[in-house]
Amino acid sequence: MITSTRNQRINEVRRLRRRRNRAVTGMTTVEGPFLLHEAIAGGVRVHEIFALPSDDEAGLAAENAGIGVTEVSVDVLQRIATSVTPRGPVAVVDIPKPVPVAPTDSIVLWEMSDPGNVGTVIRTAAAFGFQVIATKGSVDLWAPKVLRSGVGGHFRTELVENVAPSLDSLTGAGLVPLATAADGVDIATVDLSDPAPAAFIVGNEAHGLPSALRSKATTVSLSMPGGTESLNAAVSASIFMYLRMSQRP
Amino acid sequence: MITSTRNQRINEVRRLRRRRNRAVTGMTTVEGPFLLHEAIAGGVRVHEIFALPSDDEAGLAAENAGIGVTEVSVDVLQRIATSVTPRGPVAVVDIPKPVPVAPTDSIVLWEMSDPGNVGTVIRTAAAFGFQVIATKGSVDLWAPKVLRSGVGGHFRTELVENVAPSLDSLTGAGLVPLATAADGVDIATVDLSDPAPAAFIVGNEAHGLPSALRSKATTVSLSMPGGTESLNAAVSASIFMYLRMSQRP
Repeated sequence: MITSTRNQRINEVRRLRRRRNRAVTGMTTVEGPFLLHEAIAGGVRVHEIFALPSDDEAGLAAENAGIGVTEVSVDVLQRIATSVTPRGPVAVVDIPKPVPVAPTDSIVLWEMSDPGNVGTVIRTAAAFGFQVIATKGSVDLWAPKVLRSGVGGHFRTELVENVAPSLDSLTGAGLVPLATAADGVDIATVDLSDPAPAAFIVGNEAHGLPSALRSKATTVSLSMPGGTESLNAAVSASIFMYLRMSQRP
Repeated sequence: MITSTRNQRINEVRRLRRRRNRAVTGMTTVEGPFLLHEAIAGGVRVHEIFALPSDDEAGLAAENAGIGVTEVSVDVLQRIATSVTPRGPVAVVDIPKPVPVAPTDSIVLWEMSDPGNVGTVIRTAAAFGFQVIATKGSVDLWAPKVLRSGVGGHFRTELVENVAPSLDSLTGAGLVPLATAADGVDIATVDLSDPAPAAFIVGNEAHGLPSALRSKATTVSLSMPGGTESLNAAVSASIFMYLRMSQRP
């Protein structure tokens, strides 16, 4: 049992909260029994599981992962967890190897920065069968906060990261890019039954999409009779995905 | 200029972060220039505006509200703001008087508890023209966190709070209740063009809807070919609202 918050291994795990250290090691942490279960079910390699002695669920997860549980004190758990009220287990897992953009329906995060929104988009993408593509400049999809709002979606759909922010990255892979913004063509008037894979592009929460991109792609919008131009970015991305999913051939 | 964090008026404002004190006084706080602008545009009475001396936007808002700005120090602003990095202004505003359930398309929050989700639902409801009905046991719609994720939606649509958690509260007002859950009728097969107002009922994030309610109302679902039964509660509520809005007669 590890009780020292200065334990070297604990310090190494704690360092995974920094994006750079996740990139260098190719590992991240997942927190709580549900996420860990999803990671194991998704075939992700689990390196270590840290849990309180009282945590019965950790043992079951460890058995499924084929490894042991390292027991830690409450202090140590708090040091490696990122949530405000950590419950454990906290597990160190491999980040899946990078994959190229596949010719399938996609949601493109164009420099999206809010971890909660990005996680929620990943969750919806997994439910509706969408690949998630994140351009360079987006938040790290494997940050613990993004994993938390992803609620397991990370382990059930393809995630492509660090894609160059250019339309060529999408069209080159056979995707039909559709920019999303408040002043485009009403999506209700667009035929979404085309067999070619669609790629809805969602911009940064504060700045939207660059005008250079919008001038080169069809821009689509959601009608808002309430007179506002305000929807949460994850909500609007999710509605676009639902609409394509329900018309997909 | 107020520089003492023990100032009596500042303590009174700080107390508004507690639900009970908001209920007793009928007031809440709105934070940041955008929300304050929306509150004023929505005709809400503004009692006081606190801002840093450097905050130029506060002066304009105060002019629109017909009152003065009370300048405060950074310490004092942090004491009355609820966000992690408060920027001000922080204003004390009236919570609108309670209204009864109106016979119009509605989203019903049935003991929903996450402030971010509830605010996001209010934001979507305002965009798509839905009344928001919250049962007793839901989070306070006028909590600062809910206002923050509402992004002004609070001031652009009707909010009905403290409704008894019973179907009669809805049917009695002429609404057609539709429970939302993962195992109901696929919403894509439901005719949503009926002129009678629809009321989509969204349950608690952890416990869903009570089975007693579900046995008495039609239950509708979103198809999820990804094989998961997992969508964020605000996302699924928003998709249901979009679908009704786009078929509304």
